[in-house]
Amino acid sequence: MSHSSLSHDQLLDRLAETSVRVGLNLQKGQQLIITAPLDAVPLVRRITTHAYKAGASLVTTFYNDDEALLARFAHAPEESFDTAATWMADGIAKAFREGAARMAITGGNPTLLKGQNPDHVSRVSRAASRANRPAMEIITQFATNWNIIACATPAWAQQIFPDMPEKEAMDALWKGIFSASRADTENPVQAWADHNRVLHNRSTLLNKLRFDSLHFKGPGTDIDIGLADGHLWAGGAEKAGNGVVCNPNIPTEEVFTTPHCSHINGTVSSTKPLFHQGSLIDGITVRFENGRIVDAHADQGEDVLNRILESDHGARSIGEVALVPHSSPISQSGILYRNTLFDENASCHIALGQAYTKCMTDPEGLSEEELIARGANHSIIHIDWMIGSDKIDVDGIKNGERTPVLRQGEWVLD
Amino acid sequence: MSHSSLSHDQLLDRLAETSVRVGLNLQKGQQLIITAPLDAVPLVRRITTHAYKAGASLVTTFYNDDEALLARFAHAPEESFDTAATWMADGIAKAFREGAARMAITGGNPTLLKGQNPDHVSRVSRAASRANRPAMEIITQFATNWNIIACATPAWAQQIFPDMPEKEAMDALWKGIFSASRADTENPVQAWADHNRVLHNRSTLLNKLRFDSLHFKGPGTDIDIGLADGHLWAGGAEKAGNGVVCNPNIPTEEVFTTPHCSHINGTVSSTKPLFHQGSLIDGITVRFENGRIVDAHADQGEDVLNRILESDHGARSIGEVALVPHSSPISQSGILYRNTLFDENASCHIALGQAYTKCMTDPEGLSEEELIARGANHSIIHIDWMIGSDKIDVDGIKNGERTPVLRQGEWVLD
Repeated sequence: MSHSSLSHDQLLDRLAETSVRVGLNLQKGQQLIITAPLDAVPLVRRITTHAYKAGASLVTTFYNDDEALLARFAHAPEESFDTAATWMADGIAKAFREGAARMAITGGNPTLLKGQNPDHVSRVSRAASRANRPAMEIITQFATNWNIIACATPAWAQQIFPDMPEKEAMDALWKGIFSASRADTENPVQAWADHNRVLHNRSTLLNKLRFDSLHFKGPGTDIDIGLADGHLWAGGAEKAGNGVVCNPNIPTEEVFTTPHCSHINGTVSSTKPLFHQGSLIDGITVRFENGRIVDAHADQGEDVLNRILESDHGARSIGEVALVPHSSPISQSGILYRNTLFDENASCHIALGQAYTKCMTDPEGLSEEELIARGANHSIIHIDWMIGSDKIDVDGIKNGERTPVLRQGEWVLD
Repeated sequence: MSHSSLSHDQLLDRLAETSVRVGLNLQKGQQLIITAPLDAVPLVRRITTHAYKAGASLVTTFYNDDEALLARFAHAPEESFDTAATWMADGIAKAFREGAARMAITGGNPTLLKGQNPDHVSRVSRAASRANRPAMEIITQFATNWNIIACATPAWAQQIFPDMPEKEAMDALWKGIFSASRADTENPVQAWADHNRVLHNRSTLLNKLRFDSLHFKGPGTDIDIGLADGHLWAGGAEKAGNGVVCNPNIPTEEVFTTPHCSHINGTVSSTKPLFHQGSLIDGITVRFENGRIVDAHADQGEDVLNRILESDHGARSIGEVALVPHSSPISQSGILYRNTLFDENASCHIALGQAYTKCMTDPEGLSEEELIARGANHSIIHIDWMIGSDKIDVDGIKNGERTPVLRQGEWVLD
């Protein structure tokens, strides 16, 4: 299937086309808003071209610059760390409400803010979360079509492959991205159609079985995760609120749903490090009682973890549980990407914070309180962390009866 | 005065510091919004650092990409050319109203859109002008401190110095920018204080004399330009509506005021080409009757000129008249920069379109109609073009009496 004979530029162009046609399924007349690191300029230009070819009325790109952020941490006055560009975030939310699609390109330095004052890091993150909330709600409610893809950058590549020269590390990272994104197949659009069918079959089956809860068991993990009343499993291509069928994550290997934020009990341990906004958190173990984290420990970055848990009330519960077989291609690559988009698709995971209302039956018309009463957690954060491995068994429980879903990390339900 | 011993990085840092301290006079706690071409990343990073050192609460940069714009012209559907990012422009206007300062970095390819469909070029420009109007009004009313500076880019340098290799052309353009911006002096802040004093003396004198009109005479030019009732001359550092004294243009060599949009009669010819949004307009001759252009000709780009004049009602009159001696350093460099920020400071000029209300006495409290009745033109455009040379004489006329202001392009009033 793999076309190793394609040049880098050809592969880059296929990734751009895949993101526009499969990831966004961009519609004629839609505006498109892209956020990207400065290193992504060549990819953004190709996405822009494919977007206009698909009929985009306007493509607007916001570039973020790691160096400018470091200058802020180095020189800005104290008040800066509680400041965010609310005026810009509100403008973006308005564009989404008026029908714009959203493309996020990830690939920044995973540990950019390592060594910065953790109080400043956490305040900047909280101020940004608050400002971005109106726009993020549109994304979590899946009201418009959106897509996130990755771009290799030297800072990211060097952290994954610290022993390689820069050029070689970049090539290896691009190879991983092209492969996981299926841009290196003969026909990426067809490859994604086939893959989406596998994921749809899994979510359809789980929606038929309607488990009350999932039980995860493995080293450091023994936890019952109740599922929300009227939860829905999703995965692969889905229809957004504006009617557009798109693939929000490229790559994606998960099926996922909404846990019940009051019915989670037990202990769960991370199986891969979490890289959150430039900080590393590793060796996480947390204990839940009645849906809330009452005990949290991390071998590294425990202070960052505790600050995350203090973001708001909902930060101490979870809004997503996702199943990914250990044999997923990303997992099999053996690469720890230090980037959630990739690492969460190599492993079962849960997400602290906000639930996706699309993973609930009939969410429209329900108030925030009613959604919470049905178990859908509410928070300004949504942070995935990895709990799967080849040593994890997962059972689905309904009326006390157990059905094996994963054994030793592999899918056994059919 | 010139410090040719400084390295390029040192000069770049001085230019950044000059733009923040002299150009913006950025205040503690202000947000700063930068617009810049992608080639300006190294300059933007230095400006960002100086801005945070000056106490900026947040610096937000919008990068524009010539390649993305070309992709739009090459592939976008017809409706795209009437579309603008109004949601973003509104957000920026909101930020200005809430106290943000504005930095614009110019330096894009002066003829980027040469050869594109002129109808598309004009529609894109009109849609952008409409969307940007709320933000532009804050700038033309000088309600907040703002600054525009230049950054050398390969596409720009190559057009000024077509016979030089890229590196040499870039060095020559940077030399011109550093020199015109006084970044190469021993103490740029002091050099700007001295220069501002010269410009203030000229505008103070003109404000004392209160001419009814200016008469420009030279090859192809014989025109009476009435001045608005209650016009004010300005130039150099000025106090913005938020109380901050700043230098909006770096470089600047002009004193300028508001003409009377009903009292302009005669013919005026351009003395340098005008590069407007990627198009070249050269050899302009226009005839005014009672303040309005009734006849317009250009040797090159006449179609673009005519489209500009059709932008709205006010596009057929002028909102600014500016006096620049022919001996200005930029003029003496002999370089045609093909960029308004530089070329307008090498020559007397007028601007089609919107007047600067700061060039009127007591503009606050006056309605748009009252301002127009006093002669201050109103339009969505503001486009400077050059009418000065060493062959132009300018007289000030008051109650029929003539006072020489410029002779053979040189300042003679004192």
